[in-house]
Amino acid sequence: MKIYPECIPCFFKQALTTLRMATPDENLHFKGLTEILKQMPELLKLPTPTHVGRVIHNLPKKIANNPDPYKEAKIRNTEQALKLYPKLKERVNNSKDRLLAAIKVAVAGNIIDFACGFNFKEDLEHTLNLDFQVLDYKEFKRELEEVDEILYLADNAGETVFDHVLIEELNKFNKKVLYAVRGVPVLNDATEEDARRASIHEVAEIINSGTDAPGAVLEYCTPEFRKLFYESKLIISKGQGNLEALSEVKAPIYFLFKVKCPGVARELGMNLGDIVFKRNAK
Amino acid sequence: MKIYPECIPCFFKQALTTLRMATPDENLHFKGLTEILKQMPELLKLPTPTHVGRVIHNLPKKIANNPDPYKEAKIRNTEQALKLYPKLKERVNNSKDRLLAAIKVAVAGNIIDFACGFNFKEDLEHTLNLDFQVLDYKEFKRELEEVDEILYLADNAGETVFDHVLIEELNKFNKKVLYAVRGVPVLNDATEEDARRASIHEVAEIINSGTDAPGAVLEYCTPEFRKLFYESKLIISKGQGNLEALSEVKAPIYFLFKVKCPGVARELGMNLGDIVFKRNAK
Repeated sequence: MKIYPECIPCFFKQALTTLRMATPDENLHFKGLTEILKQMPELLKLPTPTHVGRVIHNLPKKIANNPDPYKEAKIRNTEQALKLYPKLKERVNNSKDRLLAAIKVAVAGNIIDFACGFNFKEDLEHTLNLDFQVLDYKEFKRELEEVDEILYLADNAGETVFDHVLIEELNKFNKKVLYAVRGVPVLNDATEEDARRASIHEVAEIINSGTDAPGAVLEYCTPEFRKLFYESKLIISKGQGNLEALSEVKAPIYFLFKVKCPGVARELGMNLGDIVFKRNAK
Repeated sequence: MKIYPECIPCFFKQALTTLRMATPDENLHFKGLTEILKQMPELLKLPTPTHVGRVIHNLPKKIANNPDPYKEAKIRNTEQALKLYPKLKERVNNSKDRLLAAIKVAVAGNIIDFACGFNFKEDLEHTLNLDFQVLDYKEFKRELEEVDEILYLADNAGETVFDHVLIEELNKFNKKVLYAVRGVPVLNDATEEDARRASIHEVAEIINSGTDAPGAVLEYCTPEFRKLFYESKLIISKGQGNLEALSEVKAPIYFLFKVKCPGVARELGMNLGDIVFKRNAK
């Protein structure tokens, strides 16, 4: 996805959010924002917002000497989500179509997002009761039948618990799931540690994409991951960061996300708040 | 008021809002934002957010060759407000304390603000039913008794109609009102033309502050206005732009505004949405 004008104020808002998570020192907040101001004209030449996100979410870690600004928030969100797990399972158990219900649960977990801001309880309840605006479910089931393995691109910590619910359903179809996490802590995105805290290792193989961007920007992933990605027959990509990074990449990707910013809404002709399960163009 | 870190993303958001009002050409939106990116490190050395606002709201006019980007919006907002005038008067007529009711009406008009965004009907109804969080009304009435003339610093177009209601009440105390407007169109702030559209000339003398900033930054006002300002015995200052510009200036100012941004909220220890009628420190 290209960078829109509305991305520019948002980059600074996101940078400030991460600077504040990294340190209470307001001088460092100004220092970080000033550094990003200097770099921004060059950053705007990068191909996607996720490329810029990589810089604006990593710079605060260096400036504040804090390698994981969202550590506590990630643990808290995962614990909040784990408490909800029985109810999420009940939702799937009581549904007519377990797989579709689990896809809805997984997209609801996508509300946890410090880049855009969220209200855990309210946004979650609201999203669980939404209808999909784009739903390539039939096509997904057809493609699902033909594969043994699914590459699942994780997004945020806490959302991991919601992904767990979907992966359990995928396992029932005898599909192996490879759950790809970020290589280092960036934003509130899930690392291996965060995925294990949601017990993902019990239902999937956790793999490290190697990226330090808040999205699977392939050029920042390991060569091993890139090979795996291009050989994958079916990919589920969670969240806006992965969408922004991969929307132009030719691959059998199903993007599963909630529209949370005006740029993504405009790119896709959707409305803010819409939920989407969309097959990439072939 | 000083510039807070949270002002930085907001400056870009405001600039984009004005660029979009000035032209539909997205290339010019990028051009404007890129120019502001270049200037921002220097702009952050300016003393108040209103100083920066002056640059970010005037630059789009030059880039888009559009001297008054909010012209239509200002006319529309004034017409919307004029339709409400009978109801606003009724509110004052039915109140126990006409002056206080008119002050409430005037602050409710402060919701009209393209720098922060607003929903005319919803925000207005909500604000009319709010209680003041700071209300130096007794002190105001005492000071009012001692003066013949009030300098009234206008804010937005449309809000002018709400000011009209308050000025009518001030006139009942036999006070002459000088209604100070911006020197040129900037943001959606009231110029002489906008004030006349709200019939302010029938209840007050409209004077031109000469400023091209979205707030009465004295150094950008005419020498005549500055003299008048410093000789004034009682000043009513509407809105955040005037507050940000004048909060450090020693003068008998009553700031009448709604808290609409996190920076102002933090500066004053208030909450977003609060309404305030506050005497400047002596």
